[in-house]
Parts: sequence; structure tokens; C-alpha cells
Amino acid sequence: MEAEKQPLRLRRIGIDTHQEPVAYLRQDCHVCKSEGFSVHSRIKIATENRSIIATIQFITNQLLTNQEIGLSEAAWQLLKADEGEQVHCSHAKPAESFACVKSKLAGKSFEESSVFEVMHDICLGHYPDIQLATYLAACSGTHLSPPEVLAITKAMVNSGQRIDWNIPQVLDKHCVGGVPGNRTSPLVVAIVAAAGLTMPKTSSRAITSPAGTVDTMEVMTPVNLSLEQIRQVVEQENGCLVWGGSVSLCPADDILLRVQRALNLDSEGQMVASVLAKKIAAGSSHVLIDIPIGPTAKIKNQSAAFRLQRLLVATGEALGIEVTAMTSDGNQPIGFGIGPALEAKDVLAVLRCDPDAPIELAQRALIIAGKLLEIGSKADEGEGYRLAQKILNSGAAEKKFMAICEAQGGFTEPPVANNVYEVTASHNGIITYIDNRFIARLAHFVGAPVVKTAGLEMQVKLGDQVVSGQPLFTLHAEAKGELNYALEFLQQHPDAIRIEETWL
Amino acid sequence: MEAEKQPLRLRRIGIDTHQEPVAYLRQDCHVCKSEGFSVHSRIKIATENRSIIATIQFITNQLLTNQEIGLSEAAWQLLKADEGEQVHCSHAKPAESFACVKSKLAGKSFEESSVFEVMHDICLGHYPDIQLATYLAACSGTHLSPPEVLAITKAMVNSGQRIDWNIPQVLDKHCVGGVPGNRTSPLVVAIVAAAGLTMPKTSSRAITSPAGTVDTMEVMTPVNLSLEQIRQVVEQENGCLVWGGSVSLCPADDILLRVQRALNLDSEGQMVASVLAKKIAAGSSHVLIDIPIGPTAKIKNQSAAFRLQRLLVATGEALGIEVTAMTSDGNQPIGFGIGPALEAKDVLAVLRCDPDAPIELAQRALIIAGKLLEIGSKADEGEGYRLAQKILNSGAAEKKFMAICEAQGGFTEPPVANNVYEVTASHNGIITYIDNRFIARLAHFVGAPVVKTAGLEMQVKLGDQVVSGQPLFTLHAEAKGELNYALEFLQQHPDAIRIEETWL
Repeated sequence: MEAEKQPLRLRRIGIDTHQEPVAYLRQDCHVCKSEGFSVHSRIKIATENRSIIATIQFITNQLLTNQEIGLSEAAWQLLKADEGEQVHCSHAKPAESFACVKSKLAGKSFEESSVFEVMHDICLGHYPDIQLATYLAACSGTHLSPPEVLAITKAMVNSGQRIDWNIPQVLDKHCVGGVPGNRTSPLVVAIVAAAGLTMPKTSSRAITSPAGTVDTMEVMTPVNLSLEQIRQVVEQENGCLVWGGSVSLCPADDILLRVQRALNLDSEGQMVASVLAKKIAAGSSHVLIDIPIGPTAKIKNQSAAFRLQRLLVATGEALGIEVTAMTSDGNQPIGFGIGPALEAKDVLAVLRCDPDAPIELAQRALIIAGKLLEIGSKADEGEGYRLAQKILNSGAAEKKFMAICEAQGGFTEPPVANNVYEVTASHNGIITYIDNRFIARLAHFVGAPVVKTAGLEMQVKLGDQVVSGQPLFTLHAEAKGELNYALEFLQQHPDAIRIEETWL
Repeated sequence: MEAEKQPLRLRRIGIDTHQEPVAYLRQDCHVCKSEGFSVHSRIKIATENRSIIATIQFITNQLLTNQEIGLSEAAWQLLKADEGEQVHCSHAKPAESFACVKSKLAGKSFEESSVFEVMHDICLGHYPDIQLATYLAACSGTHLSPPEVLAITKAMVNSGQRIDWNIPQVLDKHCVGGVPGNRTSPLVVAIVAAAGLTMPKTSSRAITSPAGTVDTMEVMTPVNLSLEQIRQVVEQENGCLVWGGSVSLCPADDILLRVQRALNLDSEGQMVASVLAKKIAAGSSHVLIDIPIGPTAKIKNQSAAFRLQRLLVATGEALGIEVTAMTSDGNQPIGFGIGPALEAKDVLAVLRCDPDAPIELAQRALIIAGKLLEIGSKADEGEGYRLAQKILNSGAAEKKFMAICEAQGGFTEPPVANNVYEVTASHNGIITYIDNRFIARLAHFVGAPVVKTAGLEMQVKLGDQVVSGQPLFTLHAEAKGELNYALEFLQQHPDAIRIEETWL
């Protein structure tokens, strides 16, 4: 093509569009004239040895000359080129695989081969954000059948690297979430690794919650490790607590998660595929999955939990990974802290056997660690909990946790927020209801998980008797604006924590 | 809030993001610090008397100072403020109505009240593009029930202005599309208005087709008229052919159509709501809807057409508008030209009774105009076609068309493209199949509808006998790059126009 003979000069324009690769062009540049781009067009930008596809936006002033092409930060990082480097531009072929997404919305099923193409195109950055949103909508709710979930899981595993640990048993755990503060993973890894079992834990960042394991670990230790670094940590300490995204385990899933997070859109099938694909890619052989149930948790009732359990176990079986799924109480937040640094504080309190440590968090971690000790044959059936407790109380878990942090690059105490605000009970009574989603949104409003110190500290539990003026929870924020916004939201939802007057 | 006391200075940054209002900020500006925005946040930007909501993107260099906020072109046009004006910024409250969209995806039905809130939020620009895509996915295929379609139609009508013509009978027509070149509206309006009936035609731009009525009319006369201007044209000439979007008839629909166009995503229910809401808002009392049926048209078979007919008529009835739905042959493109200027050329040839005018286009327009003449009691049942033909052949339709163009701001002859390329038959045979979608995509590749002169001219019809080397169609393009890309696409789809060897 003629246009390919006339290169443009690259400019890093300095705009962070979050994820979508965007290319900025003047409409009067020769490439636009000869290739005829319009604002929604997708453009292929090629250097000598790399190429990316980006969405076009037009520059309507002198920000760029008509000899230049600007790249957003996401596009810049994908192309890995230099300022001023010459690139060749052409129309990007439309992703043919999007037709499968449209067929799915029209009621047809995903075929295994079409799902592979969809994931392949997503990994290459060929789906703009609106197409990713459409894919997620097509997969949302219970729209995916078990064979479709299996196909998506396979395609996701296939989309990136896969770790082989060369040992027969690699343990892992996952919580489907929806319960703020449920930060058991650092505790479980510390206990299980201290017992001599291998548990290399790779996690995602928070999707809809105020903090994921990675967000929490990040306030204490580096989590963006290379595969080689992860191997060294695990070889030395039996366990790790790192970000899965930095080793490109499931790149398709990482791209989808960012849009899913912005939409706050859940899907049973997409969740199963996402969880199991990450575990399989991470080389796990045995996975324990915790499903909290509660009216405001992700899973609302026993029947939904049962369906999810079956889908997880069956999909795992078909892919050669042993999945054990357990349910737990998801009626209220776990622990005190909600938000990365505040949850880290709880984790450390439990590890240090602090008398003020949150008991439910410790108990929940001991149940999960206990089951894993049984799966790993370190304890007889029914004896795992007691062994886990012994390891925690002996200080061996704390020691192991610190050793893992050191191996990952060093340990730091969690930081504390600049602004706190205590929210108190408006009248006497018993706490009869705590809305998990409300607590999570409140934590978002004060800045979690992006602002590490932001979040809230719960001071009451369901069933607690409170008097007017008694603290219910404390908000933590770096910025006054965020704090004010959270308080405004709080005023609009007076029923999110219900205090019923005592009938005695 | 503290942040509200410290205004930022507005900068029109000069980036055309198509539709989504985007605000550009430095992460180190005091508003970001005190309000704690992150890249996915939505921001409320307020002047003294107006406010808009935009998606935040961060500027990572010196493009802006930390005392400034940049606006994309879409945001700039919405806020209607001046360069350097001071604005107050705060967190935008999340659109609560998006929860209804998520519920719909999870299998619940839309309630009338929730749909009103969704449309209200969409009109205010509170849905970023990924949420609009999710809404469209939730409404796609046959996912909407008749009561939901009715609720969406009402909500769309309610979202903008509604014209009252103060006369008992206002005629209108619509074609559900999918057949390239089917440009009957200018002909129908000219004939019906010449007969003394009132037909104020407001149209949309092309969604998935290479040209809509507005795209075609725009090459001959101004189409962006104010409501007052439209009234004057219609009062004087009984008819008009204008863009509905410029009078804010269904702003929610216009916003949705732009994302729908980018996704190329169809929905039966959304289509019915979109069509009828526009007609009701435009003040029509009687609407004739043409449903072309064909394997590569929008409606594939009689049963789908029948379902659509029933949904259109029932929804219209519930809203007090008389809908007549007819079906037609959608097996191949109509007329010769496909693309704005090329279709305009066909329209003019028919109006001028040119012996080389496309016969099928004329016949189809006469059928539709004839039915409208019957609905408007200008002809007895079964006599409409003949009367329409008389009006066309007498030159009265041409005269009326020119008068309408003059009243809208003047008539211009359609322009012609710089580059043409003739595609010929590879062997002898009979044309047995023409893929409408392929023809439409080919027209897109050469630039239609954005490039007005771009498109293609068909030189064969189904059933035509051709010899090797005989022209099948001619591609028209302004840019060589577009032409080359279309030719590449053509080579990849050799079966889009099928020539079967004669068996005689």
C-alpha cells in the first residue's frame, strides 16, 4: 500500500488512557488522507519488528504535526519503541472473532475454536474496550454452559505462559470473594509453607472488592516478580504471594478483568474460567476454593453455591486439576480492616498472635490451611485445623511470612492514612444487618484499592449490642474530598448497617 | 467540599474522542489530590450555570499545568464554556441506574421506571462507552419482551423534544435496512408531499449500512436544521428530509446509535424502540415500515419478519401511532449506487425520469408512496401505485424534491470520487448470489458513509448472465489506501458474488 511507504514519527503524547491503546493523529496527515481513517477506526502501527493495534482519536490543533503519530501510555508500553522512531501505519483488519460474541448474544453457543480466536484477539489487543464490555455482557450471569466454561478456561490457559514446578503436588487456594476484609491467603500460605508443602500463590488485583491479596501484599513487600524470581522464592521458602499478571500467566484474563472492574459486572462462568485458568497456568495440582454465602456476598444462597461448586469441580476435573470447594459464612465483613494497608495490619496481628487480632479472620485461615494440610497429607482427616493452629501459635507462620517477604524483596510495615473519621451509632440497639456491598463501596469512595492506606476499620459485628454514640467503624482516607464524598454516600444509605432497638 | 473551593482553568485540549466526554488532568493537581481520582473515575465539571460528567484520563507530562483541566471535543461541546474559564470539579456520583442493566443481564426484566432512569442517565452523559456497550448487549438479539420494548420506547420519547404539528395526519416511513442502496425515502417524500400530504421525514445517519437517508441527503442539501427551520420547510412544502439528531428528538437513541454503530450490534427490541420513538417524537400519526427479507439482509426469513411486524404494530398501538408493516425482497442491493453520493445520483436519476435510472429503486419507492397515498386517502385501496407513478412521471415529484432542497438551504449536485476501480467477472456464468453484508463492508472499506463520494456502483443483478471480464461493479474512493484495502478484502471473499457456470 502507498501509505506504508511514508512513515510517521512516534511521539509519546503523555496521556494515560488506562488500558486501551490509543493513537493520536492529525486528520490532515498523509496517512489519514491515503488510508481514510475515521474516529472509530482501528490502526495498525508497525516498527521494524513489532506492531500493535490502537483506536484512533484525532488531534484538532497543533499538539502534533501532520508528520507525527502520538501514542497513549498503554500503546507506548505495548509497542516498546523510541521517541521519534519511524512507524508505518495501515488500517487494522477488524477482529473477525467478534462475530462469535455477537452470535453468542443472539443465542448461539460458543464453539471451542471460536473461543480460542476470541482470546487470541483479546491478547493481541485487537478488542477495543466497548468490544471487551460486550464480550463480558455475553458471558455474564449464568449465560455460559459447562462446555463453554471449559472452552473459555482452556483458551485462557492457552493465552499465556504456564509454569511447571516439576513436583507432583502444588497447593493453591482461592476465595470467590464478595466479603470485605476476607484476607486469609497470606496467613494460609505462611502456615502451609511452614509445614513444608509447596504453595506458590499468584493472585489478581481487586476486581470489585476494596482490596485483593496482591493489593494487600503490595503494602508490605514487592509483588511484581519475574517468573525466575518467583521460582527462586518458592524453591527457598516453599511459598510466595505475588501478582500473577507480571508473569503473563493469563494475559487475556488480565485484560478482561480491568474492564470487568470498571463495569463491576459478575459472571459465574467467566469467574470459574478466570479462577481455574489462573490456577492451571500457575501449575497448581490441588486447589481449595472458598465460597462465602450471604445476602450481600457474591454468592447469595446455598443453591447458587452448589451450582458454582459443581461447575468448579467438573471443569477442574476435565482439565486435570483437583478442585475442592467449601462454603463459608458471608453475612458480614471478616476481620477489622477493609482496604490494602488496613487488611495488612490485620494479617500481621494474626501472625504475631496479637491478643487484639481479629479472631474470625484467624479461624477462617486455620480452617482453609487445615484442609490444605490434610490434602497435602501432613495431617489426618479432621486433624488439619489443630496442626495449622499449632504452626500459627508457635510463631513458625510469622517467621515463614517474613522469610517470604524478605525473599520477594524485603518487608515494610503498612502505612497509615492522613485522615480518619469515626462513624457512630445513632441509637441504642443490636446490629442485625451489615451490607457487604455498601462497606465495599464506602471503601472505594475513600480511595481503596488505589490509595493503599484508604478503607475502613469495622468496630462492630452482627449481634453486637451498641449504645447511641458508640463507634461503628472508622473511615481512613488520604484526601479530604474522598472522605467527604464517602460521608455523603453514607448519609444516603442509613440502612446499610441496621441497628434494631432491643426488645428486652 | 474543600476541592470545590479551588477551581481549575479550562483548556480545550484539541482531541476528538468521538463521543465520550473525556477530562484530562495532571495527577499532581490539587483536585486529584483532594478528591482522589483514579484513571477510571468519572468527574463532574461545573461552571456557574452548567455541569457535565466526563471520564478522567491523566496527563503524564507538561501538556497541562496542575492548575488546568483539559476537555475533549465532545466534553467541550457539552459544557459550552470558554477557554480559560474557571470550573469546579468533584467526584461524579456513579449512575445508580446501571444496576438495572446488570439485573437485566442476570435474567431479570426491565421495569418501566428503571428504564426511564437508564435513559435519563444516558442523556445526561452519565454512561461511559463501556456501560453503553453493556446496555446494548443486554438488549441485543431477542432479549427484550414486548412490555420492555414498550417501556424503552416510552423512555426514549420522553428523553427529548416532541414535535406537535397541529394537524390530524402526519405520514412517515421507515425501512429496517440491511439492503445496500435502498434509498427510497427522498423519492417517497417527494411524491407524497407533491400529492398534498404532510410527510416531515427526520432520519438517522447510517448505523451499520454504507449510507443512511441523512448521509445521502447531505450531499445535496443541508440536513442539520433547527426545529423552527423544519417547521418552516414543512409548512411551505408539506415535507422535509432532515437529520433528527439536530433537533434533539431522541437524544438517548442518538447516543446509543453511535456505540451500536461501532459494535455493529443489532437488537430486535432496541430497533423497534429506536424506530418508533423517533417517529412518535417527530409527531407522526401514521407510519409505514418496510421490512426487506433475505439471507444477508437484517431480517433473514418470514418468521423473523412476522415477529418484528407484530412487535412494531403492537408497540405502536399501545403508544397511539398507527403502524403498517410491509415486507419486501431483500436478496440483493437495490439501485446501482451504494454510498452517500452514489445513492444521491440514483435518486436524482429516478426523479428526472432518466431512461438509465435504476428501475427496482423506482418501483420500490412507488409501492411505498402508493401505500402512503392510500393511508392518506388520496387514492383508493389498490390505486396508490398508479397515482404515485403519475406524480413521478409528470415531473411533480422532481419539482417538489428541488423545492424541499431549496427550502432546506439550497441544492447541490452530488460530487464524484477521485479514484474508481472496476471489478470484473472471473468466468462465464449466471449471478446466483450477492452478499449484502459483503457489499456493505466493501463500501465501508472505501470510506462510506464518512467519505461522501465513496462506495460502489453495481453493474449486475441476480439472474444476470455474465461473461469473463464483464464488469460486476465499480469501486469509488477518495484515497488509494482505502481502495487497496477494499481490494484486499475482496480477494479474501471470492464467494461474496457467486457466478455459477451455465448448465445449458
